[in-house]
Amino acid sequence: MTKKIGKSTYSFPSKPVIISSATVAGPKEGQGPYGKEFDKVFSDTILGQKSFEKAEGKMMEEGTKLALKKINLTERDIDVFIAGDLLNQTITSNFTASTLGIPFLGLYGACSTFVESLMVASFLVDGGFVQKALIATSSHNLAAERQYRFPTEYGGQRPPYAQHTVTGSGSAIVADKGQGPKVLFGSIGRVMDLGIKDPWNMGAAMAPAAADTIANIFFDTNTKPNDYDLLLTGDLGKFGSSILVDLLKERGLDISKIYFDCGGEIYDKNQDTHSGGSGCACCAIMSLGYYLKQPQYKKIIIVATGALHSPTTYQQGENIPAIAHGVIIEK
Amino acid sequence: MTKKIGKSTYSFPSKPVIISSATVAGPKEGQGPYGKEFDKVFSDTILGQKSFEKAEGKMMEEGTKLALKKINLTERDIDVFIAGDLLNQTITSNFTASTLGIPFLGLYGACSTFVESLMVASFLVDGGFVQKALIATSSHNLAAERQYRFPTEYGGQRPPYAQHTVTGSGSAIVADKGQGPKVLFGSIGRVMDLGIKDPWNMGAAMAPAAADTIANIFFDTNTKPNDYDLLLTGDLGKFGSSILVDLLKERGLDISKIYFDCGGEIYDKNQDTHSGGSGCACCAIMSLGYYLKQPQYKKIIIVATGALHSPTTYQQGENIPAIAHGVIIEK
Repeated sequence: MTKKIGKSTYSFPSKPVIISSATVAGPKEGQGPYGKEFDKVFSDTILGQKSFEKAEGKMMEEGTKLALKKINLTERDIDVFIAGDLLNQTITSNFTASTLGIPFLGLYGACSTFVESLMVASFLVDGGFVQKALIATSSHNLAAERQYRFPTEYGGQRPPYAQHTVTGSGSAIVADKGQGPKVLFGSIGRVMDLGIKDPWNMGAAMAPAAADTIANIFFDTNTKPNDYDLLLTGDLGKFGSSILVDLLKERGLDISKIYFDCGGEIYDKNQDTHSGGSGCACCAIMSLGYYLKQPQYKKIIIVATGALHSPTTYQQGENIPAIAHGVIIEK
Repeated sequence: MTKKIGKSTYSFPSKPVIISSATVAGPKEGQGPYGKEFDKVFSDTILGQKSFEKAEGKMMEEGTKLALKKINLTERDIDVFIAGDLLNQTITSNFTASTLGIPFLGLYGACSTFVESLMVASFLVDGGFVQKALIATSSHNLAAERQYRFPTEYGGQRPPYAQHTVTGSGSAIVADKGQGPKVLFGSIGRVMDLGIKDPWNMGAAMAPAAADTIANIFFDTNTKPNDYDLLLTGDLGKFGSSILVDLLKERGLDISKIYFDCGGEIYDKNQDTHSGGSGCACCAIMSLGYYLKQPQYKKIIIVATGALHSPTTYQQGENIPAIAHGVIIEK
């Protein structure tokens, strides 16, 4: 008997539990409305390192070590480290894995990585393979911008639907037993490509993937929006979120009463971040740092979306394919 | 009870089985000593596409469709597609996932991806989640060289320990039942960094990771080299393989009687490929196309190694971290 439910959703009968988590963030995220919710806010974006890429590595390293320290565990207590990030060859995760010395499974899901890693950890825990998995993801505004678009020093103008890549890192420990939010289901996303070619317009590229995965979750688990206290997406931004709400309304699903987008929330409207935040860290630090800690949210869907293009493919005129992975969490 | 054995090895009691596989290769690989073993050999490296990156995508697409066709399955029969490749943001896998429309888990393990994907598929099958997983990986000499080092048109001289990235793609279907090679164990690698900084010298960077994983496999499963008919590494090349043999000899493990490296074998010595082949496709097409089909090999260890650097990190003076994942297969 498989644990597959419907088209692409899987149940975790043993209810893997998030026994610890840690969030670190950059200065802009610290000055935003959720700044005080993060465990550590750095006062600059270079963290005493020689490059922004190394600074991102430092953030993930500090975050993972803090997640361990909070519950008095060490690297030796962890069976597997599961991580991914936005930088080419996921170097932040690779170098952190080297420092930690824990057996490592590298993922690439762009900004969907937080939920992808949480889901893969839940597969390994529920499948009876591991007792404790450490997951992590990160993004760094200045490292991501110079890789994907232009170095920020260039000062290029950004369209109003552009988003601001979050500087931060979120990590969590998923275990077979213990106290914390429990992962009940995971839904693996399909890649959707609706013809968006503009690398500034991530929200529009990713909203159809989010709509597909959210509709699958409701259909596969035979639930409706009002069976949940909260539906959270990762980084559609204000522009992409409104597309998502419309796309689901067309399918008869009204999510408006339970829905927030981490990217739409993380910055204040005066912070000049246009459509909001994006990046792997956005969903991770907002979910782990804030939403999963609010007592009023007991049954939660988190859907993290990722734009799966590369600078090479969009310069070659290709579309921007996108994916969204989802989990149902219960507290 | 977990299925973890020793430090980092996991048993798959249900013995997930490779029920189909397909291999496609470029012209140079077709002209090599194993050319006739691959299902399809392309006569050029562009495949009628507009770029080498798109040609790599075409190879993975054709390979995955062939793996399905060989056993009369369609995309709808597959629960999950698990893939990764060398290009930035693993775009080959992302675009193939978009074409296939199967729920997708993206991985990044550089040239270790073939075994990483086989292992993750086995976790999902043995854990009772999926019945059929499609896995794939690929590499393309001209796309990889211009991304990692120089465009080949530049004609730069290569040191004798350099390897030639294999053009090709390997895919397989891992299922809960059926006929074919069975995956008994998987061993998740740790990232090793012994200070190699030269991006031409992948064999030396990866050999310590291979030695670590192979020693763990023997220790964790309480077996010795002569319990196996074949030990295969992915792409250490002739130079890296000889380092591996020496590193294991220092630990009292003599693998010389059962050992081959796919990268050391795939090209003839007259093909001007220096230390041999490399790239994600190397281990995949040699394992699936040749070694797993030879009747004399019944109990097999396959260890795929990956160099986890990026052009950015080596240009910033960082070391080249490496990983190796292993599986034990029985026929």
